[in-house]
Amino acid sequence: MIKFASVNGEIVPAEGASIGVTDLGLLRGYGMFDFLLILNGQPLFVEDYLDRFWRSAHQLKLKVPLDRDQLMAHIQQLIEANGLDNASMRLVLTGGYASDGYSPSEKANLIIIEHEYPTYTPDKYEKGIKLLLHEYQRQFPTIKTTNYVVGILMQEELQKAGADDLLFHHGGLITETTRANFFIVLPGDRIVTAGDGILEGITRKHTLMLARKHYQVEERQPALEELKTATEAFITSSTKRVMPVVQVSDVVIGNGQPGPVSKHLLELLKEAEAAYLKNDVRVS
Amino acid sequence: MIKFASVNGEIVPAEGASIGVTDLGLLRGYGMFDFLLILNGQPLFVEDYLDRFWRSAHQLKLKVPLDRDQLMAHIQQLIEANGLDNASMRLVLTGGYASDGYSPSEKANLIIIEHEYPTYTPDKYEKGIKLLLHEYQRQFPTIKTTNYVVGILMQEELQKAGADDLLFHHGGLITETTRANFFIVLPGDRIVTAGDGILEGITRKHTLMLARKHYQVEERQPALEELKTATEAFITSSTKRVMPVVQVSDVVIGNGQPGPVSKHLLELLKEAEAAYLKNDVRVS
Repeated sequence: MIKFASVNGEIVPAEGASIGVTDLGLLRGYGMFDFLLILNGQPLFVEDYLDRFWRSAHQLKLKVPLDRDQLMAHIQQLIEANGLDNASMRLVLTGGYASDGYSPSEKANLIIIEHEYPTYTPDKYEKGIKLLLHEYQRQFPTIKTTNYVVGILMQEELQKAGADDLLFHHGGLITETTRANFFIVLPGDRIVTAGDGILEGITRKHTLMLARKHYQVEERQPALEELKTATEAFITSSTKRVMPVVQVSDVVIGNGQPGPVSKHLLELLKEAEAAYLKNDVRVS
Repeated sequence: MIKFASVNGEIVPAEGASIGVTDLGLLRGYGMFDFLLILNGQPLFVEDYLDRFWRSAHQLKLKVPLDRDQLMAHIQQLIEANGLDNASMRLVLTGGYASDGYSPSEKANLIIIEHEYPTYTPDKYEKGIKLLLHEYQRQFPTIKTTNYVVGILMQEELQKAGADDLLFHHGGLITETTRANFFIVLPGDRIVTAGDGILEGITRKHTLMLARKHYQVEERQPALEELKTATEAFITSSTKRVMPVVQVSDVVIGNGQPGPVSKHLLELLKEAEAAYLKNDVRVS
């Protein structure tokens, strides 16, 4: 059980942590968030996540109620209060309280929650996962808004199809999954992934930095028909790292097995994580 | 000040009314609502609103935690507790609490809030309002989801343009505004309004029932170029009833004054409201 959460800068028991019912995130979906891993009690790549958090806030015209140093210190305080070596952390920022149910307040609401550390059975990495194509374009692709209605509504269909997530496409081009970035590997080990019209994942960023040292990388939305010629496919996300994809709807990718490029990138990413953690970014 | 609100069937002081921070409406925008007027202590056209509330819930795969009679009685209880003759009421239903931040709970969260009675200065009806065109298609147009990010984000642009609301269009066709249905009147008093791809407003329904007795009605999405030939335009919503529109972006509608058809429909609607209230639908 997670013991504590944070609401507007105060650490409170997670059990009763609550937000008033006139919150605009609740009433109007006017909210955004970010989500990162805590490893060995340290927030992984936290600078990148905070950069994106401020970027999303700016795009939604919201003001983060703490400055960056305060937020970093507060995150560390919550990690210490909960005392979990490994966990994940969600930072949510909403339009604040609106007595008329519509107009954003000057004062945004900031909620920080820790979740259990997300684990995936090893066979997901050994066997790879399946995605289900779904025609959809996120409304504000570059902002990490709280709108996940499509993904949640389609969970039954995913289960029926034995698929792990939806893969969004629009106009014949592939963008991203519900909660991850998507990559294909074309013959000659050319890695292709959408460069715009997506949420720019932090794991995507680190994976691309590593990939460029070893492979040719093309940032453009892959065409649907390229799935048939891809030798590999994979997704990246904070919790899944580099997860091989072996099937997209009816299309089997490559030989239907996780391929060497995605395995290599997962290794490189784990090394990068370990190197980051050795530098210990704890706020003193 | 509104004294009371309701959270999951319990009437609580509005001041401290709150919802836990793992609510899926808050974390993932997985929520829907409905909104109706309270006039003389009675919920106006409440049967229609509850029909739609259950329809939205079904489409989002949510279960309303009270049955219809229980919800009606509870609404009446909240109206009596607050003791306001005229007010508005918001019923919000979300995916419940998700400890993993993603999977809907078996138990939806139901929040009921009363707001002050919404008033519009008489000159809005006398002079008409201006709308600003915005290319956009709502994600689930038939479900009254809580997603109003576009409308809220664009409030500054609306103010700059001196406009009251956004008018959404897509592929050259007009759908609806952020919070209202949209109608044009073509020469010969033909009323045209979108018949699909929209949220079917309750005020729209009543206005159309009344309009059909006096005018020709076409349910199809008006084309953008028809704005130029329209003699009148208006919007309908629970709070605005029938509000004349005299300008859409740069296009002045008709002679730039509210027209006789919208005035007539507003009168007819007010009569229908009065007739409804005389039948007194209070749950005894």
